[in-house]
Amino acid sequence: MSAGSTLARLRNQRPLVHQITNYVVMNETANATLALGALPVMAHALEEVEEMVGLASALVINIGTLSPPWVESMLVAGRAANARGIPVALDPVGAGATRYRTETAKRLLDEVDVAVLRGNAGEIATLVGVDAEVRGVESIAAGTDRAELARSAARAFGVVASVTGPVDHVSDGERTLSVANGHELLASVTGTGCMATAITGCFLATNPSALAAAAEALAAFGLAAEDAAAVASGPGTFHAALYDALFSLTPDSLDERARIA
Amino acid sequence: MSAGSTLARLRNQRPLVHQITNYVVMNETANATLALGALPVMAHALEEVEEMVGLASALVINIGTLSPPWVESMLVAGRAANARGIPVALDPVGAGATRYRTETAKRLLDEVDVAVLRGNAGEIATLVGVDAEVRGVESIAAGTDRAELARSAARAFGVVASVTGPVDHVSDGERTLSVANGHELLASVTGTGCMATAITGCFLATNPSALAAAAEALAAFGLAAEDAAAVASGPGTFHAALYDALFSLTPDSLDERARIA
Amino acid sequence: MSAGSTLARLRNQRPLVHQITNYVVMNETANATLALGALPVMAHALEEVEEMVGLASALVINIGTLSPPWVESMLVAGRAANARGIPVALDPVGAGATRYRTETAKRLLDEVDVAVLRGNAGEIATLVGVDAEVRGVESIAAGTDRAELARSAARAFGVVASVTGPVDHVSDGERTLSVANGHELLASVTGTGCMATAITGCFLATNPSALAAAAEALAAFGLAAEDAAAVASGPGTFHAALYDALFSLTPDSLDERARIA
Repeated sequence: MSAGSTLARLRNQRPLVHQITNYVVMNETANATLALGALPVMAHALEEVEEMVGLASALVINIGTLSPPWVESMLVAGRAANARGIPVALDPVGAGATRYRTETAKRLLDEVDVAVLRGNAGEIATLVGVDAEVRGVESIAAGTDRAELARSAARAFGVVASVTGPVDHVSDGERTLSVANGHELLASVTGTGCMATAITGCFLATNPSALAAAAEALAAFGLAAEDAAAVASGPGTFHAALYDALFSLTPDSLDERARIA
Repeated sequence: MSAGSTLARLRNQRPLVHQITNYVVMNETANATLALGALPVMAHALEEVEEMVGLASALVINIGTLSPPWVESMLVAGRAANARGIPVALDPVGAGATRYRTETAKRLLDEVDVAVLRGNAGEIATLVGVDAEVRGVESIAAGTDRAELARSAARAFGVVASVTGPVDHVSDGERTLSVANGHELLASVTGTGCMATAITGCFLATNPSALAAAAEALAAFGLAAEDAAAVASGPGTFHAALYDALFSLTPDSLDERARIA
Repeated sequence: MSAGSTLARLRNQRPLVHQITNYVVMNETANATLALGALPVMAHALEEVEEMVGLASALVINIGTLSPPWVESMLVAGRAANARGIPVALDPVGAGATRYRTETAKRLLDEVDVAVLRGNAGEIATLVGVDAEVRGVESIAAGTDRAELARSAARAFGVVASVTGPVDHVSDGERTLSVANGHELLASVTGTGCMATAITGCFLATNPSALAAAAEALAAFGLAAEDAAAVASGPGTFHAALYDALFSLTPDSLDERARIA
């Protein structure tokens, strides 16, 4: 099975991906999901999250603008996803910046069976207990070996850890893959990490191997960024072009150009 | 009176359209409202919704990311709009996906005098009680006759029902119009249905005939989509071009190209 | 010190700017902050706002979609910013439209030491007690002298008042500057006022003179609007180009073209 064949299947199946995410990026992750070829649904009320999970093929949880009622819904939705056997992707946005974020991310990892934990090096390092400088939701990576960090996180939490950066590293604790697609303009648009997690959710809905799905998602998103950068004049036009590129990405192009190693 | 003359009057009057809508599309519906030529205001706190309704020429209610405090504010704002005699447009996003959404949409229809109910075929079919497959907030239309569906919904709820799809159908229960403007790229951008409802609110603020306003709004939005698609390279550039096209749409062009029948 | 030297320092320091803002514009103000060269973080939960303020170099408070829990967090964050000695920018979105907004803006001005109050003429006039017609969050300026309005507001509240419009006026009560950069397309995109406030926060984080920072921020944002308008076909492409222009704006260009008088 290849990244391209996963993408082809995704577009054929159009999986519904339930996202409980932050206020800043809801529109963006919904549009990235649609542009790729899946269907997004945002629902956060305790009154409906379990039922919505029941319709979905994957659940994405993102703590970027958390508050107690949302955290409660994330836990309930996560458990419902586990009960149904659909995969959960977790984005611990800003873990390390405040105790509330760090503790919420740890609580979610503790109480929900997470398939893929997708974050930047600072967030993942915080959760694993490695020193890292985190500034708000951005993190300046310490000199850690990111492949090792992904492997440690995978083992510590029993997840596939997906550590994104100039080169991404994805590990299930045994096998570690690197993904060398992407573009530096991604760092100039807010929510591109959140989009990477949403797209990870889309691939998880389609590929039963969480390790492969996580790597394929990052390759697809990175390739879209490369294509968008080729036509962009800055972060604004890059952002618009990113959806065009996700929409236009073909399975063949993904297979040919994915730099998964 | 023609669609073009309504648009010309709207741009002259710049009506304030109060929107209680979902987190995913707030920026988008505000920008669509502004680009068309009206003024948006978003306000959801119980502490101010009645007073804000008092300043507005129309109210748009959208249940896309509902929760109990928001539903309460929608009901209070809806009643205040009724008391003032300003029109209300309701978008039952995701009705049919969860009981909470279906029941909230029905409660709003029951407790608020809604001028236009704007939804996709699945949402409207759910509310009327016709079988439909709904996946999250997207719906895969059953084989129902959509014109008949609009007519049934109009009669069942005493509203103008506006059922959007490849061809839109708008009915007051007696007279049913079809609107054949639009473009398939609308389905690749989240919130375009919500934008159609917001623009319906703008036209309702300007045209006392709810049936005509609903059809004119869909023609205007559909034409903007046609113009945007002509210059777009995919959903991202289409999305940006959609606001350009709403902004540039002239009353004459709307009259010439509107396919209302 | 010049506007260009502030911008150069900002890009070197990449200050973290904590924003408690409204649902409509969160993505937009975060992207404007990033495009300019600073780092945004959005956090509103009482559980973390004080700690997040502790990491930031400036705090931006915007009441555009307020509700009681958010107002409480704004007050707590504002006091924490004062205790740490970092500057606070306040955007009283919609003051004058409802009592709740007017009273909340006044309460924030009363309980928090605000460095810069950035609003349109109607909002600022309401707070000062001058008559103004306010329609939702838009305001139609009365015939007041805006420079005088800025001076009055500065004196009344002990802040730098930043009154934006076709020409902006910034005053500390003694000295009043005008900023003549900008473009009328700014009025066709929602949240451009909020972006101006966010960028004011970025400059405040970098320049200890609040008066200079406020004027420099408006010059930079106005220049970006001029550059964006030169390549735009309407409000949608203008919006995307605005981020490109903020990203591409050089310190030299800012110094040469800023129309601060």
